[in-house]
Amino acid sequence: MGRLSIGTGLVDWLSEIVMIKVGIVGGTGYTGIELLRILARHPQSELIAITSRKEAGTPVAEVFPSLRGVVAIAYSDPVKSDLAKCDVVFFATPNTVAMGEAKALLEAGVRVVDLSADFRIKNVTEWEKWYKVKHAAPELLAQAVYGLPEVNRAKIKGARLVANPGCYPTAVELGLLPLAEAGAVDLDHLIADAKSGVSGAGKKAEEHLLFSEASDNFKTYSVSGHRHWPEIRQELDAAAGRSVGLTFVPHLAPMIRGIHATLYARITANIGFQKLYEDRYRNEPFVDVLPGGSEPDTRSVRATNTCRIAIHRPSGGDMLVVLTVIDNLVKGASGQAVQNMNIMFGLEETMGLSHLAIVP
Amino acid sequence: MGRLSIGTGLVDWLSEIVMIKVGIVGGTGYTGIELLRILARHPQSELIAITSRKEAGTPVAEVFPSLRGVVAIAYSDPVKSDLAKCDVVFFATPNTVAMGEAKALLEAGVRVVDLSADFRIKNVTEWEKWYKVKHAAPELLAQAVYGLPEVNRAKIKGARLVANPGCYPTAVELGLLPLAEAGAVDLDHLIADAKSGVSGAGKKAEEHLLFSEASDNFKTYSVSGHRHWPEIRQELDAAAGRSVGLTFVPHLAPMIRGIHATLYARITANIGFQKLYEDRYRNEPFVDVLPGGSEPDTRSVRATNTCRIAIHRPSGGDMLVVLTVIDNLVKGASGQAVQNMNIMFGLEETMGLSHLAIVP
Amino acid sequence: MGRLSIGTGLVDWLSEIVMIKVGIVGGTGYTGIELLRILARHPQSELIAITSRKEAGTPVAEVFPSLRGVVAIAYSDPVKSDLAKCDVVFFATPNTVAMGEAKALLEAGVRVVDLSADFRIKNVTEWEKWYKVKHAAPELLAQAVYGLPEVNRAKIKGARLVANPGCYPTAVELGLLPLAEAGAVDLDHLIADAKSGVSGAGKKAEEHLLFSEASDNFKTYSVSGHRHWPEIRQELDAAAGRSVGLTFVPHLAPMIRGIHATLYARITANIGFQKLYEDRYRNEPFVDVLPGGSEPDTRSVRATNTCRIAIHRPSGGDMLVVLTVIDNLVKGASGQAVQNMNIMFGLEETMGLSHLAIVP
Amino acid sequence: MGRLSIGTGLVDWLSEIVMIKVGIVGGTGYTGIELLRILARHPQSELIAITSRKEAGTPVAEVFPSLRGVVAIAYSDPVKSDLAKCDVVFFATPNTVAMGEAKALLEAGVRVVDLSADFRIKNVTEWEKWYKVKHAAPELLAQAVYGLPEVNRAKIKGARLVANPGCYPTAVELGLLPLAEAGAVDLDHLIADAKSGVSGAGKKAEEHLLFSEASDNFKTYSVSGHRHWPEIRQELDAAAGRSVGLTFVPHLAPMIRGIHATLYARITANIGFQKLYEDRYRNEPFVDVLPGGSEPDTRSVRATNTCRIAIHRPSGGDMLVVLTVIDNLVKGASGQAVQNMNIMFGLEETMGLSHLAIVP
Repeated sequence: MGRLSIGTGLVDWLSEIVMIKVGIVGGTGYTGIELLRILARHPQSELIAITSRKEAGTPVAEVFPSLRGVVAIAYSDPVKSDLAKCDVVFFATPNTVAMGEAKALLEAGVRVVDLSADFRIKNVTEWEKWYKVKHAAPELLAQAVYGLPEVNRAKIKGARLVANPGCYPTAVELGLLPLAEAGAVDLDHLIADAKSGVSGAGKKAEEHLLFSEASDNFKTYSVSGHRHWPEIRQELDAAAGRSVGLTFVPHLAPMIRGIHATLYARITANIGFQKLYEDRYRNEPFVDVLPGGSEPDTRSVRATNTCRIAIHRPSGGDMLVVLTVIDNLVKGASGQAVQNMNIMFGLEETMGLSHLAIVP
Repeated sequence: MGRLSIGTGLVDWLSEIVMIKVGIVGGTGYTGIELLRILARHPQSELIAITSRKEAGTPVAEVFPSLRGVVAIAYSDPVKSDLAKCDVVFFATPNTVAMGEAKALLEAGVRVVDLSADFRIKNVTEWEKWYKVKHAAPELLAQAVYGLPEVNRAKIKGARLVANPGCYPTAVELGLLPLAEAGAVDLDHLIADAKSGVSGAGKKAEEHLLFSEASDNFKTYSVSGHRHWPEIRQELDAAAGRSVGLTFVPHLAPMIRGIHATLYARITANIGFQKLYEDRYRNEPFVDVLPGGSEPDTRSVRATNTCRIAIHRPSGGDMLVVLTVIDNLVKGASGQAVQNMNIMFGLEETMGLSHLAIVP
Repeated sequence: MGRLSIGTGLVDWLSEIVMIKVGIVGGTGYTGIELLRILARHPQSELIAITSRKEAGTPVAEVFPSLRGVVAIAYSDPVKSDLAKCDVVFFATPNTVAMGEAKALLEAGVRVVDLSADFRIKNVTEWEKWYKVKHAAPELLAQAVYGLPEVNRAKIKGARLVANPGCYPTAVELGLLPLAEAGAVDLDHLIADAKSGVSGAGKKAEEHLLFSEASDNFKTYSVSGHRHWPEIRQELDAAAGRSVGLTFVPHLAPMIRGIHATLYARITANIGFQKLYEDRYRNEPFVDVLPGGSEPDTRSVRATNTCRIAIHRPSGGDMLVVLTVIDNLVKGASGQAVQNMNIMFGLEETMGLSHLAIVP
Repeated sequence: MGRLSIGTGLVDWLSEIVMIKVGIVGGTGYTGIELLRILARHPQSELIAITSRKEAGTPVAEVFPSLRGVVAIAYSDPVKSDLAKCDVVFFATPNTVAMGEAKALLEAGVRVVDLSADFRIKNVTEWEKWYKVKHAAPELLAQAVYGLPEVNRAKIKGARLVANPGCYPTAVELGLLPLAEAGAVDLDHLIADAKSGVSGAGKKAEEHLLFSEASDNFKTYSVSGHRHWPEIRQELDAAAGRSVGLTFVPHLAPMIRGIHATLYARITANIGFQKLYEDRYRNEPFVDVLPGGSEPDTRSVRATNTCRIAIHRPSGGDMLVVLTVIDNLVKGASGQAVQNMNIMFGLEETMGLSHLAIVP
């Protein structure tokens, strides 16, 4: 048997280890349990508090038996919790909760990563139009950093408040950003035909999400307008430096996890699209541009923080087809949130995120 | 209790009932069993012979226990079968079988409905390019009628040889035909993002079709070029009276049955698209144009011969989005084949096809 | 083409056709839509009224688009409905509704088939213990006939009030009745290990029934005691003429429809079990005893009213293993309800129930 | 932020780290990819060689894109491979391969963990009866250790050749061992009603494993006799010190991973069964006895090496019902194989096996 040589660098590093004190607000849903799964094995974070009005007092491992013997703490009541003692608090809550509670935490010196949509859209009017309530903390929008590391890594480093991107936006933006930045396609008629697993809708007891409704079935929803549309447009506009046109059609696919986005753009200039994407994402630890001709499946990223991308030009015509796959609960939510935390706290960006896909 | 009044018309009609003698070649696959399910309850057809090299001598109900007590005959050897005594023979075979055997049957006076791709494409060179073998009966192509009743009803009436459309082509053509006929959209850049259940690939023991591979998973296949693409283009070209441009991306969805096509067309003239579709299909028994704003799911047509269509114009922009759903094994294969048989033999077109969707 | 000869008998029969006026209470759930699917094609029934508090005024086909063009009426308010004009009313309601409303209908001369559990258990005390409410109409229990035609056909014929059996009870009773009647096994230690598709729980928006919870998952529920246990025991006791011992463990399987019961009984006398079952069910139109060595799958009965049964004696030991499969929504609910209606009204017992299984 | 204190013990330990050189024979199937997933993140193992006749020369990450950027080596031809240089070789092959190749490796000083069935059954005659070929290396059976750590930990420590248990046997034995050891139930009539996900059948392109066949379906298979039956009986006999009677009925459930075993035993003596199980498994890192009344689901162990067990006594009767769940590919195959490797090489038993379940 060989022997692993240990440099003194490692020993030095070990003595420097800091443990980040983490809090989670609303940890009973799917982004909550996924945060718990990731953080429970993250070498430099420690869960201090997790709140839930409904489950206050109940041990986390009772709600999620998969965490028996791993997560020892119980849910605490939001009002009595130790969140202010945390270094960072994740909001794994429905929309409109974080905007009411973030301010106090920020003022107490706690950094915040919001997995909901409260701080994603810069334009308050636009946000209020789509989310149909008055925004409770518009003054925080300016400092909120949109947490897509592949675009905003430097800003995330110094951020106090990170707006974690939506699942569809992550899949669509990573697929279209190189085009928005480079031009070379008709930016007025981009199309994103996106398919999501059912967990994307959260752990809500609604009829259309029942097994007997969603299984062996396929359909669109919100064709007339989905809340992720303005978010995607905001980011593509920023990347393009102009207003882009985007048709976004979400579909509900009969699977638990995964988003597959099929993106269409009419080519207006002949550039090397494969190389464009490879160059754009060469140094990204969580974006994998596949070789030409590849067709990624969602399970190749299941339970991982990776986005895989493939570029096609069918029959050599003038339509570019870009395929992207992510796990909606990881790169599309909780994994990306931890990636953001790593960046915010100067840790290795991939720390605690080296899971491999569950295949089959 | 009320009493159903029976006019003498019915009595007259009853004395006129004719039974069509039916044969099936290759009835062990999914289009085969679906033909059997439909024909076994068709009031004016009688299964005379069903052939299978592999299962010759085995009772059909042994291979398909769901037919116990319903289908009494056994598979017969193709060479010794009674196919020539039939009024009509369905080929539910892999591609390249029917083109070798149809001629003899036609010469014996038997009509043929081919569910495979052998007679769908009029241009032999094009066919041979996509199917990668020499066509065995190019002389039959001229008389073969493409069996989409919504386009070719009159020709099907007199046809001796019907080429039953593919599953994707049925879903995409019914969705795009009104546009191809009317113009009003950019016909050079049509997009068909199509999702199919796994049964569309047939009952082939291939790795990627295994439950453990296809379940909880989603992906494209054949983005670079699918055999249904030239078939769809041929029909759209004919409808438009010009060559159209089409990007066609098929996806494998983790469900047994169903095709969902999401079709994109850039609007070039402001016409009433909802009315266009309603007018086009007003008298079609198997095409249901939904009210504006509808989003059909595949299970609303599961196990039925119906195609449902919905028209959208997201955010009032210049992109038309057309949604179509069919059951790939019924309207996309065996149901449409029986519909064609009904037309060919002067029966009520809907006879034996009144199944309602299995929900849930 | 041959010609179907029509005897004068048929003509006579046609002039005798009566149409049964049918009402449905609570037709928005899964047994409701399944009743609608079956009755819409039943040649001698006519849907007069269907009630729903929540959906009053909404056309049925809006709630269930699969019925577009087939079912024309709208849901009506229960209090204003025409139920009293019906020949028969089906209760497709949650438990405890029928017991409150059946009496008035019965007194108006309407016959009632209750698909819920209200009238299944003869012993009121036992019923109240399991259903945890006071029974609202104990005086009706005596006249209620347990609607398992394979046992009570004669009584059903004259019944005014039929208690349609539960789904598990149907699958388990049909599998164990021949043993309960014949003895020859240890009746004190029967075991029913039953697996149900998710639709068995109804269309209730509950967390554990969500796609993301129930899919790719498997578990028991109610091991400590399920409400179908006393129902099954009541019927087995009656068949055996003594009290039997039964362990009943229900499981939730990740499929929409289907119940598979695996039944275990220790053999105490060597009789021909295969023959016992074949003899018992020889004349039953909806019970299919498979040849020795068979292993039925649930999809062989999907969307049909058939129960298939297979008998095993593994390794020739002293343990008898009986396998039964049904569709929980058809033979386990709405199909059996229509079968009961047919019997009650002197129609052909199989009328409107000749559906073949959807395979694949 | 707190600071992790690093004792000098850790530094000492780090300088002692050994890397185990690992080889895999036949790494293209499901136990192969699962071994790769686990070993790629195992801190003290290094993959030296992986063989495949069919894929020789192909990079592993081409066959399994989920390993892109993680596993760099290619499959090698079995005859030219470096297996003899390994410390340990895993056979992730179909049955009958390992028995032909293990001897040469053992003689070269390589330890072997066989995931197939070749060395599980001690009695050659029995093995040959069930596997229907002549055993190629009966002389190795005596030294082969049955790799269920919960029974044979001490023997595994010194083993050269470990026969990794089957998936069903792992689930059933862990559930019945405490009873076999303690008596207190009728050991002549044990029943194991076991349900497995489809991946248990391996990555074989067989019709009955197709998505369209196995999905939305449920059935038994091999009721008359399954190869895991003699394996389970051998181990239960050993634990009981006598011959036990077992009826074993395997079922195919429409899910990818997971085994759920429902075990029935008639109680003959009143002991504290909950305590019996808790005591038996108190120190086992991978067996979790749940509190009374629990009903574990398979997803609570998905992608983990844990077995969860719950004990029930329905209605306080004399039938004990034991529920066990495992992931068939982890504790039922590759995870247990790595657990065995850890024991054989004196590593922490849980090393590389701390995955948490993927929920949802």
